[in-house]
Amino acid sequence: MTARNVTRKRNGDERRRELCDAAIQVLAEHGSRGLTHGRVDRCARVPEGTTSYYYRTRAALLRGVGTRIAEIDVTNLQSVIDEPRDPLSPFAHLAELVMMQADGTGLMLNRARHELLLAAVRDPDLAATSQAFGARINTMTHEATAHLQPGTDDPALLDAQTTAVTTFIAGVFTRLIGGDRTINDAGQLARLLEAVATAVSLQAQRT
Amino acid sequence: MTARNVTRKRNGDERRRELCDAAIQVLAEHGSRGLTHGRVDRCARVPEGTTSYYYRTRAALLRGVGTRIAEIDVTNLQSVIDEPRDPLSPFAHLAELVMMQADGTGLMLNRARHELLLAAVRDPDLAATSQAFGARINTMTHEATAHLQPGTDDPALLDAQTTAVTTFIAGVFTRLIGGDRTINDAGQLARLLEAVATAVSLQAQRT
Repeated sequence: MTARNVTRKRNGDERRRELCDAAIQVLAEHGSRGLTHGRVDRCARVPEGTTSYYYRTRAALLRGVGTRIAEIDVTNLQSVIDEPRDPLSPFAHLAELVMMQADGTGLMLNRARHELLLAAVRDPDLAATSQAFGARINTMTHEATAHLQPGTDDPALLDAQTTAVTTFIAGVFTRLIGGDRTINDAGQLARLLEAVATAVSLQAQRT
Repeated sequence: MTARNVTRKRNGDERRRELCDAAIQVLAEHGSRGLTHGRVDRCARVPEGTTSYYYRTRAALLRGVGTRIAEIDVTNLQSVIDEPRDPLSPFAHLAELVMMQADGTGLMLNRARHELLLAAVRDPDLAATSQAFGARINTMTHEATAHLQPGTDDPALLDAQTTAVTTFIAGVFTRLIGGDRTINDAGQLARLLEAVATAVSLQAQRT
């Protein structure tokens, strides 16, 4: 690849990322129903036709957005795995990342993710994209749970803890979408997540 | 009210319910983007224009659907409150009701509920309808949690348990929408819900 081609590829990747970030905002503000190439162009402040050039169809644009959201989720999860465990509040960092999706750009991401979840019901290609990333994110979530709950050697227990913690987080995301702030701060959520993981472990010991 | 008016009102209510059930199916199958009065007419097998007659605008139709879904949720929650508590598996009946939303008409309801949650972001009237029912459902959920976890006299603890259990259930609904069957049967879910409620109670005792 020549130097010029490398630059062009990098610029293309950056442009795609910009367009997807704009599409996330459009999805969050106007819903799946309001997502059009033109609206993404205007939101990204790029010349008319740019989004159509990079993402020919609406389905391709949705897959691009799905990939972008998964990239952000992967980066966040990696930071949970990399951060040294806080023995006083092991779930503190994870809880902070979740609560960042309560407002601002985090809330947009949260809403866009849910729009895609529903759109994937009618779009097998989008569902396949989500599933591919879902598998990777699932593996990382296992790793994160093992990191936050050390001493869990039993894979079945780790599986059960991961399921419980991620289900709980999915529920928090759903609450936040509609502005439900029953769970309102990262400290409260960190305690709840720890309680959930501990409860699953206690239950496993009893049975 | 004359006998004829009473009959007319009852017929009107029944017709509205039929139309809303059809709209739930349309929302689940075609998304918010695909919801049109004409599609609801065809799905309900009623003459063209019927849905427009009962629900003049799209917003009115969405509010009708929101009311219908809340009615179903209220009926389900009431059955949890009314059913004698099973001491061996207190959350069994609630878990069965949740898992009914994994497929068939239950999954349609689940998907339509999420479509409305996202639509309410852009529709203050719909958000107000949801909040009004949300408050009632919240009170009933408290009652159900108190029924399933007797001996919880502390209102703050009951509050925390209700929050944790409903958040977990919201997460299960979200998983089921995309066909994620990590949580796959009512028995598994009943144990998880019990673990969550117990965990919150244990944590409260420690602090």
